[in-house]
Amino acid sequence: MAEKDLLALFVETLKDIYYAEKQIYKALPKMAKAAESTALRKAFEKHHDETEGQIERLEQIFELLHKPARGKKCDAIEGILDEGKEIMEEYEGTPPLDAGLVSAAQAVEHYEIARYGTLKTWASQLSMAEAVRLIDETLDEEKKTDEALTKLAVSAVNAEAA
Amino acid sequence: MAEKDLLALFVETLKDIYYAEKQIYKALPKMAKAAESTALRKAFEKHHDETEGQIERLEQIFELLHKPARGKKCDAIEGILDEGKEIMEEYEGTPPLDAGLVSAAQAVEHYEIARYGTLKTWASQLSMAEAVRLIDETLDEEKKTDEALTKLAVSAVNAEAA
Repeated sequence: MAEKDLLALFVETLKDIYYAEKQIYKALPKMAKAAESTALRKAFEKHHDETEGQIERLEQIFELLHKPARGKKCDAIEGILDEGKEIMEEYEGTPPLDAGLVSAAQAVEHYEIARYGTLKTWASQLSMAEAVRLIDETLDEEKKTDEALTKLAVSAVNAEAA
Repeated sequence: MAEKDLLALFVETLKDIYYAEKQIYKALPKMAKAAESTALRKAFEKHHDETEGQIERLEQIFELLHKPARGKKCDAIEGILDEGKEIMEEYEGTPPLDAGLVSAAQAVEHYEIARYGTLKTWASQLSMAEAVRLIDETLDEEKKTDEALTKLAVSAVNAEAA
């Protein structure tokens, strides 16, 4: 049995977020297609491209660890994305659809921010400077995406009210 | 059928986080009991007390809306808490247990920050000033809890390395 140390926990969490990113990568085009406003559609498309880069960065970290890049079913992201899907179906063609889509996307972003924040702390403790750099790049993108979504949340509800 | 407007979406999300808070309230004493360090145990106990107040604030918002306080099964929090439970079981009695517990708790906090952020934007659009005030109080507590956990994450891995 492998030792249950911080490195083991790091690798396990890496697999969790790797699985999550792949699910997010599949979900984003559906969210872009569902979006009513062009600004929101473009935000989802942009983040789809970014997510591709984020998946590659995770693969680089697996490489640094000499481990195959492998995901592990992540119940959290499944639940978060299921809730988003439910909103998409339930509010299709109704005024607050975009507000609901932004809400779903922000729940996703915050999950990622939590996980990458944790991974960064652990990588630093494990003296993995290159991994820290890679995680930081992604963390910065996720935070910027969340900020952009906060702005879109306001414009989505304003449009809904108009 | 009820109208699918922003108020409907607000109430649905309120039910989601009400359910989530109740699950978190039940999970926190288990996390406190599992924690190795006194500081982490105390942080979980403190947040358990806070969560009670957060549930009461949600009940006040239901009252403002003249609706019964009722939860709606939230797959996202179920998934997030399940992952935390898995870590607790898998890493019981091992050095990185506390690091794993902090990680699980931060995923919870970020889910709440995302949901309350959304609810605040919508309450403001719906001109529900009292709800905005209540949500803001909780949001502030959640952000402070997340910051405290970030500090504990560093001390947890330092203790693990020692």
